Amino acid sequence: MSEKIYSLVVIGYGGMGSQHVRMLEKVDRIKVTGVYDVNESRLNKAVEKGLKAYHSFESVLADPLVDIILIATPNDNHHEFAIQGMQAGKHVICEKPAMLNSKEIEDVMKISQDTGKLFMVHQNRRWDEDYLAVKKLVDEGTLGDVFYLETRVHGSRGIPGDWRHEASRGGGMVLDWGVHLLDRLLLLFGEPVQSVYAKLSYILGHQVDDGMKAYITFESGKTALVEVGTTNYIPLPLWYVTGRYGSATIEDWNMNGQVATLDREDTKDAEPIVAGAGLTKTMAPRTKKEESITISPVPRVPSDVTQFYINFVDAIEGKCEPIVKNEEVLSVMKLMEAIFESHKLGQAVYLNK
Amino acid sequence: MSEKIYSLVVIGYGGMGSQHVRMLEKVDRIKVTGVYDVNESRLNKAVEKGLKAYHSFESVLADPLVDIILIATPNDNHHEFAIQGMQAGKHVICEKPAMLNSKEIEDVMKISQDTGKLFMVHQNRRWDEDYLAVKKLVDEGTLGDVFYLETRVHGSRGIPGDWRHEASRGGGMVLDWGVHLLDRLLLLFGEPVQSVYAKLSYILGHQVDDGMKAYITFESGKTALVEVGTTNYIPLPLWYVTGRYGSATIEDWNMNGQVATLDREDTKDAEPIVAGAGLTKTMAPRTKKEESITISPVPRVPSDVTQFYINFVDAIEGKCEPIVKNEEVLSVMKLMEAIFESHKLGQAVYLNK
Repeated sequence: MSEKIYSLVVIGYGGMGSQHVRMLEKVDRIKVTGVYDVNESRLNKAVEKGLKAYHSFESVLADPLVDIILIATPNDNHHEFAIQGMQAGKHVICEKPAMLNSKEIEDVMKISQDTGKLFMVHQNRRWDEDYLAVKKLVDEGTLGDVFYLETRVHGSRGIPGDWRHEASRGGGMVLDWGVHLLDRLLLLFGEPVQSVYAKLSYILGHQVDDGMKAYITFESGKTALVEVGTTNYIPLPLWYVTGRYGSATIEDWNMNGQVATLDREDTKDAEPIVAGAGLTKTMAPRTKKEESITISPVPRVPSDVTQFYINFVDAIEGKCEPIVKNEEVLSVMKLMEAIFESHKLGQAVYLNK
Repeated sequence: MSEKIYSLVVIGYGGMGSQHVRMLEKVDRIKVTGVYDVNESRLNKAVEKGLKAYHSFESVLADPLVDIILIATPNDNHHEFAIQGMQAGKHVICEKPAMLNSKEIEDVMKISQDTGKLFMVHQNRRWDEDYLAVKKLVDEGTLGDVFYLETRVHGSRGIPGDWRHEASRGGGMVLDWGVHLLDRLLLLFGEPVQSVYAKLSYILGHQVDDGMKAYITFESGKTALVEVGTTNYIPLPLWYVTGRYGSATIEDWNMNGQVATLDREDTKDAEPIVAGAGLTKTMAPRTKKEESITISPVPRVPSDVTQFYINFVDAIEGKCEPIVKNEEVLSVMKLMEAIFESHKLGQAVYLNK
């Protein structure tokens, strides 16, 4: 018996919509058959690529040949399109941030259950090699028990000049990048968040946040700093991870960085060194002579983001669990809501109370 | 008229006491004449250096030839020694942290006023070249308005194994290193702190904190992260400073680092780049081709920590204000108290209410 090939229509043929089309060329089980966009010139481009142009969302829904819709529109359209799609019998792949609030996600989860149609969010940065390397370090205990990490993205170009400036359309950096970093953090530590203290920045004068710093405490006491910045002319490392017996940094997407692990406990105090205008034992760097520490390169973990689509098809067919679970997406949304609330209150917000 | 040479006795001849003696060799206006310590072998070393050995603190106080005492004992002795010293007619230089709580500092400030004797705290890290470089960048507006900075020291050797492990003696990293970083931060931004959210770490299982992270918000909305760590096998930069039009890092005490400044505003959005498993415009690095940013080395500011002692003598003689003001020391102590309280409460603490 030959496997079913699923027909997919892209809703919103901008940067991410086009990127999906390119990536899906490598996925046998899904065939992109058409595109819907409000912009005629984008539809023309789709036609040039041999895709069918749909001039209304309703015409996509009405087409019985369409199995899957992939929503890559501005964020404020996700909710309505996802619900209508499932109600019309389509499975739904949805760009992040899935929705603008947790109520909307709960709506969509209910419709998915009622219709039996799969709804899965494209948390593509779970396939970033830097994240996978950190996950490996944490899971394998290379650094000892990891009790703190920093995960960030630093740009210096502000917010791209489109609907991402608009609050009502789901703009801002918490929803754009925070959603990725928080999603991965929850998977890394695999335990409930106890509280979050967050500061958003509005340096550029838009109505939406142009950066966030979220200080997260997990129930076991582990902590993390999650940061997005758009006015950082020097980027700090994507990752800084500290365990009891080692630390790791990943500087950039080229996987520059290092892993430092302690070979043995110190038997005596360090000698004081002159540092700046004073003396310090505590902050004396370890010397090569001591050979008490090993520096290694960051581990490399092969990654293939097309796994996302293959999993989607397998999950439709009940062969496996969805790799991005809606409960996970909901947890991240609740955490983002707590981040907005914390910034507004100027206080830590406790979750799961 | 020849200038008076002040006689100084060092109280506590350990690491810092010895360092003061070495530094004071370069200061004409002060002559170290003796040492008091509870440890006989240290007194013997002082005698070998030609200094007078005092076998009790009382004998120092009773010596009319002594003008200044310099307190470099464990922290819990500072309060009593300072008060007795001033009451016996001595001026007092005191190691940091000045006292264990703000009540003690207020006591000492009152005694200083009543006796007319000078009490000044040795905040020597105001003379660190890295701090002075950041101060220059902030004051001169090189980065535009600086709205956020990170200041940290990262070691991996735990807490030195002496009284610094004991809470009752004023151990722990907030009092040891936090006091320096906070002192400088308050001078850098020169405005009142609105609130602080802090997490202390107790990773090493001592009764005192082995690290701190304090997220500080100033009244104007500027923020800062102040961090001390003793289990950081890879150190993050001492400084990370971000302004509207530039960023700067200082990596280490050797003044490695860079200053990045924006040459002109972007006229258009960046092109999306592939980064990890996804695309991004927002986090696309600036390319050399664009020439929109200038990278410079960190500015060098000459520094001489012996200015501290010269200022002390000049302040005794009413020629100038003390360079380390007791009001400043009190503000830092109140901030450290708020840090301990925030950690305990798991909430941000608002100051000056």
